Amino acid sequence: MEKIRIGIYGYGNLGRGVQYAASQNADMEVVAVFTRRDPETVQTVLPVKVERTDKIKEYTDKIDVMILCGGSATDLPEQSKEVVKLFNTVDSFDTHPKIPAYFEKLDAAAKESGHLGAMSIGWDPGLFSLSRIYFESVAPKGSTYTFWGKGVSQGHSDAIRRVPGVKDAKQYTVPVESALERVRNGENPNLSTREKHTRLCYVVAEEGADLALIEKKIKEMPDYFADYDTEVHFISEEELKTQHSGMPHGGFVLRSSESATGNKFLTEFSLKLDSNPEFTSSVLIAYARAIYKMAKEGKTGAVTVFDIAPKYLCAMSEAEQRKSLL
Amino acid sequence: MEKIRIGIYGYGNLGRGVQYAASQNADMEVVAVFTRRDPETVQTVLPVKVERTDKIKEYTDKIDVMILCGGSATDLPEQSKEVVKLFNTVDSFDTHPKIPAYFEKLDAAAKESGHLGAMSIGWDPGLFSLSRIYFESVAPKGSTYTFWGKGVSQGHSDAIRRVPGVKDAKQYTVPVESALERVRNGENPNLSTREKHTRLCYVVAEEGADLALIEKKIKEMPDYFADYDTEVHFISEEELKTQHSGMPHGGFVLRSSESATGNKFLTEFSLKLDSNPEFTSSVLIAYARAIYKMAKEGKTGAVTVFDIAPKYLCAMSEAEQRKSLL
Repeated sequence: MEKIRIGIYGYGNLGRGVQYAASQNADMEVVAVFTRRDPETVQTVLPVKVERTDKIKEYTDKIDVMILCGGSATDLPEQSKEVVKLFNTVDSFDTHPKIPAYFEKLDAAAKESGHLGAMSIGWDPGLFSLSRIYFESVAPKGSTYTFWGKGVSQGHSDAIRRVPGVKDAKQYTVPVESALERVRNGENPNLSTREKHTRLCYVVAEEGADLALIEKKIKEMPDYFADYDTEVHFISEEELKTQHSGMPHGGFVLRSSESATGNKFLTEFSLKLDSNPEFTSSVLIAYARAIYKMAKEGKTGAVTVFDIAPKYLCAMSEAEQRKSLL
Repeated sequence: MEKIRIGIYGYGNLGRGVQYAASQNADMEVVAVFTRRDPETVQTVLPVKVERTDKIKEYTDKIDVMILCGGSATDLPEQSKEVVKLFNTVDSFDTHPKIPAYFEKLDAAAKESGHLGAMSIGWDPGLFSLSRIYFESVAPKGSTYTFWGKGVSQGHSDAIRRVPGVKDAKQYTVPVESALERVRNGENPNLSTREKHTRLCYVVAEEGADLALIEKKIKEMPDYFADYDTEVHFISEEELKTQHSGMPHGGFVLRSSESATGNKFLTEFSLKLDSNPEFTSSVLIAYARAIYKMAKEGKTGAVTVFDIAPKYLCAMSEAEQRKSLL
């Protein structure tokens, strides 16, 4: 069988997840990992060649799809428009307000070089976006709601760690069950930020720190916590390590709608993930397959989950898809 | 605004639903309803021209997409391959085992005439098929489960009505909650037919009928009831009319999967519908929009939900989709 040759650009949680995810797909082969670090210092989770990022030019004939595993804040905006000049790419750019500008830049660079770049792939943006577009298209009169969690927010955990007296912390975003139920009951509620999610914080304080002050500083932090009902629990370093070391996440997309005669429809998609980065990686790999097939058909430019027909994601032949999945 | 000109071929529950669904979409216009009955006898739910089906040839320049609203048993296999010679079509063919053969015939007829025919559109096949292909593609190691209900099965209701002594009946398919929970818990159970669904029957008996015999005949009916736990309730004609006149339905597609490191993922899609035919109709209308756009791009042949990128379903521009839905 001809394998799809994958390159992994950046090797953190996501890069490791992509390598694992590729190993679950018989039609995939990871050719090399590219890193800004000294390759000698990089320990991969499965055996694979490790190269410096400046070596990618030597791989243009050896890699079909390069998966960009850097962060959205600074890595991807710089990297994607450069790497797409040499390869078809897949990335997980997730800074929602910057998506239109990112698309324009990636699209121009990809079209100029005759490559295909899939952006904002994962679960939100990604599978959640798919739920939103399918639900709104098939049921135009209604309201769509997205809830996140229960899951770890890296950004909020980092914000807590910056509070003086905090040694370490983990923050969970938790959807409010009663709000979910109101949506499921067809009430079409207007929900404030506070009504949709609560924030649950597990904090390891430094010895002798003023716990009441830490709690106050967390709860009053603008943008991150002030608009939410926030719970702060102080725990030991040991407990943080044993009980809160995972990266679970998940969420819900619901649309409550009605027909022209007033009949109600509820459409709901939900995810429950033991590992957020490993699931995102698994989605990236499926879209690498799609990009590979679409590039073969001559498609170029930037694309999102909206532009990609489901058939391209699936390893089965189209006839087999119709027979066993339709 | 240029409107998409829709024709409705067949005017039962589904045809009426399509007319209502089109009225919820500003970019749609229903040009005519086609019927095998005497047009004078057909009362439409909203004002529209009614024509005999043999008049469709006069509409080839006036209709962009013809939506076929006949049944899968006998209507669609005959109609789709004829109507697609004149129009782009959308249908809800749902006889799963016959899908491959149906596809081949529709594909040949559509390609020969340069039209596009979307088949098996609705929720199962349709949105449930989409869940199956997306879930299996992004999480290749796992098991997928489809549950139906709680909802009315027309075929099972009809079967009960054929039992001697039965005046009228309504049958609900009900998913077994404990089986759903086992799947959600990641047990990956092997579920028998009996373990997945129960069958709930409301029966109006003729006066003086042997109720015990009716119940026995229902419960032992092969294919329809023998493999299930079946409950039979005898009720009055009045109660059947007031409590069981709707056509609700719904269901669940779940995939329980795991990463290469053993982390568990649960992906779940569910529907809860007050009206099964009205929701199916609403999906048909969204796919009519897709077919209209794809035909404009020159695409011909038979297609299913797997072949259609989500962007085509949505009335928004692609830039607006990325901005507000991604």
